[in-house]
Amino acid sequence: MKEVQCGPERLAEYMRMDEENSVTQAEEMLMVSNMQSRKPCRRSRSMVKECMQRIQAAVSSVVGLHWLCYVALGVLTALLSFCMNFTVAKLLRAHQWLYSHLEGHAVLQFLCWTLYPTSLCALSTSFSHSICPYSAGSGVPEVRCMLAGVELPDYLSLPHLFAKVVGLTCSLAAGSTIFLGKVGPFVHLSTMLGAYLYRLCASAASVKEGKPKQEILVVSAAVGVASCFGAPISGVLFSVEVMGTHYAVRDYYPSVLAAASGALAFHLLSVCGGKQETVQALFKTTYSTNLPFQPVEILAFAVLGLLCGAVSCLYLLCHRWILQFMRTNAILSKILATERVLYSGGVAFLLASITFPLAAGHFMAAKLSMNQLLSSLLEETQWYVVSQNASVQATGDTLWQAWSPSGSTVYVTLGVFLLMKLWMLVLACTLPLPAGYFMPVFIYGAAVGRLLGEGLAHASTNGVSSQGTACAINPGGYALAGAAAFSGAVTHTLSPALLALELTGQHTHAVPVLLATLLANALARSRHRPSFYDAIAIIKKLPHPPSLLRTCPKLLSVPLRQVVRVPTAVLESQDGVTSVQQLLRSSTERMFPVVDSHESGVLLGSVSRLQLEAFLHGHRHGRLDKKLVDQCSFQPVKIQLSTEATIKQAYSVLGAVREQCLFVTERGRLAGVITWSEINRIMEERHIPTLNC
Amino acid sequence: MKEVQCGPERLAEYMRMDEENSVTQAEEMLMVSNMQSRKPCRRSRSMVKECMQRIQAAVSSVVGLHWLCYVALGVLTALLSFCMNFTVAKLLRAHQWLYSHLEGHAVLQFLCWTLYPTSLCALSTSFSHSICPYSAGSGVPEVRCMLAGVELPDYLSLPHLFAKVVGLTCSLAAGSTIFLGKVGPFVHLSTMLGAYLYRLCASAASVKEGKPKQEILVVSAAVGVASCFGAPISGVLFSVEVMGTHYAVRDYYPSVLAAASGALAFHLLSVCGGKQETVQALFKTTYSTNLPFQPVEILAFAVLGLLCGAVSCLYLLCHRWILQFMRTNAILSKILATERVLYSGGVAFLLASITFPLAAGHFMAAKLSMNQLLSSLLEETQWYVVSQNASVQATGDTLWQAWSPSGSTVYVTLGVFLLMKLWMLVLACTLPLPAGYFMPVFIYGAAVGRLLGEGLAHASTNGVSSQGTACAINPGGYALAGAAAFSGAVTHTLSPALLALELTGQHTHAVPVLLATLLANALARSRHRPSFYDAIAIIKKLPHPPSLLRTCPKLLSVPLRQVVRVPTAVLESQDGVTSVQQLLRSSTERMFPVVDSHESGVLLGSVSRLQLEAFLHGHRHGRLDKKLVDQCSFQPVKIQLSTEATIKQAYSVLGAVREQCLFVTERGRLAGVITWSEINRIMEERHIPTLNC
Repeated sequence: MKEVQCGPERLAEYMRMDEENSVTQAEEMLMVSNMQSRKPCRRSRSMVKECMQRIQAAVSSVVGLHWLCYVALGVLTALLSFCMNFTVAKLLRAHQWLYSHLEGHAVLQFLCWTLYPTSLCALSTSFSHSICPYSAGSGVPEVRCMLAGVELPDYLSLPHLFAKVVGLTCSLAAGSTIFLGKVGPFVHLSTMLGAYLYRLCASAASVKEGKPKQEILVVSAAVGVASCFGAPISGVLFSVEVMGTHYAVRDYYPSVLAAASGALAFHLLSVCGGKQETVQALFKTTYSTNLPFQPVEILAFAVLGLLCGAVSCLYLLCHRWILQFMRTNAILSKILATERVLYSGGVAFLLASITFPLAAGHFMAAKLSMNQLLSSLLEETQWYVVSQNASVQATGDTLWQAWSPSGSTVYVTLGVFLLMKLWMLVLACTLPLPAGYFMPVFIYGAAVGRLLGEGLAHASTNGVSSQGTACAINPGGYALAGAAAFSGAVTHTLSPALLALELTGQHTHAVPVLLATLLANALARSRHRPSFYDAIAIIKKLPHPPSLLRTCPKLLSVPLRQVVRVPTAVLESQDGVTSVQQLLRSSTERMFPVVDSHESGVLLGSVSRLQLEAFLHGHRHGRLDKKLVDQCSFQPVKIQLSTEATIKQAYSVLGAVREQCLFVTERGRLAGVITWSEINRIMEERHIPTLNC
Repeated sequence: MKEVQCGPERLAEYMRMDEENSVTQAEEMLMVSNMQSRKPCRRSRSMVKECMQRIQAAVSSVVGLHWLCYVALGVLTALLSFCMNFTVAKLLRAHQWLYSHLEGHAVLQFLCWTLYPTSLCALSTSFSHSICPYSAGSGVPEVRCMLAGVELPDYLSLPHLFAKVVGLTCSLAAGSTIFLGKVGPFVHLSTMLGAYLYRLCASAASVKEGKPKQEILVVSAAVGVASCFGAPISGVLFSVEVMGTHYAVRDYYPSVLAAASGALAFHLLSVCGGKQETVQALFKTTYSTNLPFQPVEILAFAVLGLLCGAVSCLYLLCHRWILQFMRTNAILSKILATERVLYSGGVAFLLASITFPLAAGHFMAAKLSMNQLLSSLLEETQWYVVSQNASVQATGDTLWQAWSPSGSTVYVTLGVFLLMKLWMLVLACTLPLPAGYFMPVFIYGAAVGRLLGEGLAHASTNGVSSQGTACAINPGGYALAGAAAFSGAVTHTLSPALLALELTGQHTHAVPVLLATLLANALARSRHRPSFYDAIAIIKKLPHPPSLLRTCPKLLSVPLRQVVRVPTAVLESQDGVTSVQQLLRSSTERMFPVVDSHESGVLLGSVSRLQLEAFLHGHRHGRLDKKLVDQCSFQPVKIQLSTEATIKQAYSVLGAVREQCLFVTERGRLAGVITWSEINRIMEERHIPTLNC
């Protein structure tokens, strides 16, 4: 019976509020009551809410609740990241333990090596898909859409969060054979956490804080990167870069605050967990600081940047080709639609078989985990020089020895690694499970840099032996620059340069790393090539105009006159009950423009679906033959675009004022409506985006 | 005779172009010809132009000219920075040489110590004022206005550049007695250089590149910081922070490119000049990396942040008070208006007398230059502990010994330094000469941090001696965090945190530095206190709405209806020659709205002053009794604000679309015009900004 009470009485209350012109509040209350009637655990919910209100009352005298919300977001994401790292490490160690105990039984070892990641990938796919069908992939392209202002509520739900956490843990536990990362999904996870905290704060706050939801999404993007690597400033730079066109400067301080809290919490948890002695970089390197590199090496770093840019173009080409192929190939799309677990397992088995350490994996340092791969590539030791020195080789078991197995040199290993991992990376991107693609690319770039660095170090040492002067080249520095440059080029971002510095704490190489990243980016961005994320957004048909615009920049200057359509769902001010009923039935919009008459078409304002529903409801209770104009207060149109404005201007204004809808008028007459989906429609109509593979 | 040719023939050409509806091109040509007719060295100008065109043709096939312009901006600013550093170092050494050769003659030494900076300050004031009266101060408040979209052409002229370079060199050569910095004016200098390069590129490019001028200003702001310190990423962060409300993400890549070129050029010039062995941080520190700080020290860093925030509030209060006092005190304003050189010299003499090393300067480490002060404060050595150890004290002459002179401990020296420099800093800010105020604040913060760090180190060493465990606290780390926190709090920015890391290359302290800066900022920003730049903008009545809005945030939600005025300079479409003539005489606007009639007031479009002048000119040549509507093609109004839109929305849209003017309409009728100066007028009318001292 309680459910029924939500009906007429409540609506009457909203009507009263409506008459007092507080539409937004009425809308919110209706939404809240809808949510409450649908959701379980009412009692515990109300207890949590009461508790939150008390806490809020206590602290609101010192700081605003939203500031606590940002700090909590950082801390929670860091906690999630730490717990996931912990679980993944345990699962990986279990695999290693089992594999080492089967020493001597090649077949059993093969089965252990392949079936463990296969089953984890299959589990990840089936679990995440059954909880939330959208949870596959990294989530960054979707986050970019949401940051641009598009609403995608499915991507912020709690079941999605749960599916992504479990799925991602399984994907990561599959290890370096499948070669997947964590940062992309973490950005998405932190966005979901942020949206949840925002709802919690909004319901706990007695006074409406008036903070837009967009803000918490921007903050979350920064927190995702910061909590994943303990790198606060590159997180903030990342959040600037993923914004569509405009970054609101007021989001900057909250972003830094939340990112710093996240990074600090992540580091302190590592300290408490006994992994680190104090707060320090995740992959700390200690290169010699006296002469980290010769000034002339700047040229070599520039060459490395260009090389990474060229390789990234090849990688992105393959990636676009396989995305296109997966969509167009009938058999594959059928398998992916019905037998995705089989596909996932099959691909994982293939990748694992290839990296089997007793076969090809011997020449690919396959036994190292993702973290070990990165740590070993960043080492200062000159591998080739040291591997020729038998006495050094005998001492202890260091990471780099996996790169110099018996029967081959480091050049062969690095070459095989680069050749094989290129197509394996591309194939791994097609796996329908929650996973990140940044860290693999980062490691791949480090290997490219290492190869060049080893070559240069070898060449310079040969030179030295004849000249007799010490001129040590540090191949680790090249690996660092290569990692930043390649991952930056693939994602068309520059924040990886700072991330590389924050991950290693190696500030001596700041300038060469930045230089390599800039050059690699310049090459990758030339000729309007889409980035990794752009390609996914285009293939998935996500409403992300910047991706489409990047592939066709001349669309920006097209005037709206040529593209907008007069909307069909328009109300007249004199409309009565029948027209409103018809309109509500025929349209699914949430907001309708009101004109004085269909002939003149002069725009008077807009009216929300909720207002119209209340209008109809009032009619049922005796107020007959009333006109819309007498019953509803129209919301004034604050910003109008003329038909002469360009798509670029429409897009800028939409992003700047963070509205979902803008009206286009011509001398006061309604000529069209601009929404995110409308911009997307225009883009697609004017320029069917194709991935030029 | 050549000048005369610019007249009717040219105008007729513009008329033709006007009829072809290419108004913008016509405007530009007129401006260019106006510039050419005014400026000297025509021949060399045309040669430079021709040369530029050839270069452009050669390189445009590879990269766009604007990319080269960004790189050139970085390199030129770095060159300027390097040359200035070189000159200042020579001048400072000359002073030191003279002072040391007068050893034994106290009076002569006093005269040398005081008159050298006095005369340099007087020279700086008189020179810069005689070339360009606006060149005093740091220039950052003005740059912020220009970045917000306000046009201030006086602040981008070449004479201003010249005045600022010479004036700044003199100010810096006055040394640590006057305690002035370089970074603020450098941001302004790089803006001027950027604007000049932009004009050069625009005139050299045969095809119009279509890049907005705003972009080069944003890039320049980043380059200024990057070239001054060789710190590219904090430069980019600074440019994000100084933007009013929205940072256009498309400016990000150019900013990083230009900042990286600037930083690289600055470092390479240092390498070539023999100052550095390779590209490395300017104030490189080499703290122990094994255990840079105990996790529990995070709390001490947080306390330091709060302490710096509190001290910054005191400093800003004094600064606001003295700014207000200088404006309101009749005698002082008279002196500043007529005898500014005398004032400048007088204040410099006072400051220099106080720091005389044989008197009070003995307890203030007055003999150290600005760079030496910073380097010494950032040292890892525990001064107090070492100063008690006679054997260490005897070895060599190190910087820190200036802080521990005979007859006093480091605590006394640091305390005296902090107490005296607080009011000396405030007084130095009133000097009417080109100078920066960031570096002094940075050093002051470092001293605050050092004092806390020394205290903690002393306390922990005492604790250790009883417990017998090694627990070395590094006071240099506290100095680093204090510098970032204090300078961040004074300017209400967070980029100093990254700047501190980039200046020292000390990435181990990233998290504590960021934490301290965040907390100091939180304290300094609370209760809507204006920042250092805000206070100057308000006192100077600069058109910078964010400064005003920050002091009175409730203004943001005021609807335009309450504040806009119907403009007086409005044209009717049927207006003839007489009305246009009257309008042009009575108004100085550059753009006029056109309505269909004064009664209906329906906005049709806008028309520029140039179009109207061409219209009048055409009339003189025989086309009589023509109406405006037949002769001029009105520019369509692309974006209209309604009277219901808020000030915040108006401001956001103005910033996002980078227009100088927006029209406010009510159902198609013109209700007002929103320009930057109009927003400023509204702010001032609604809320007379007062500096609450």
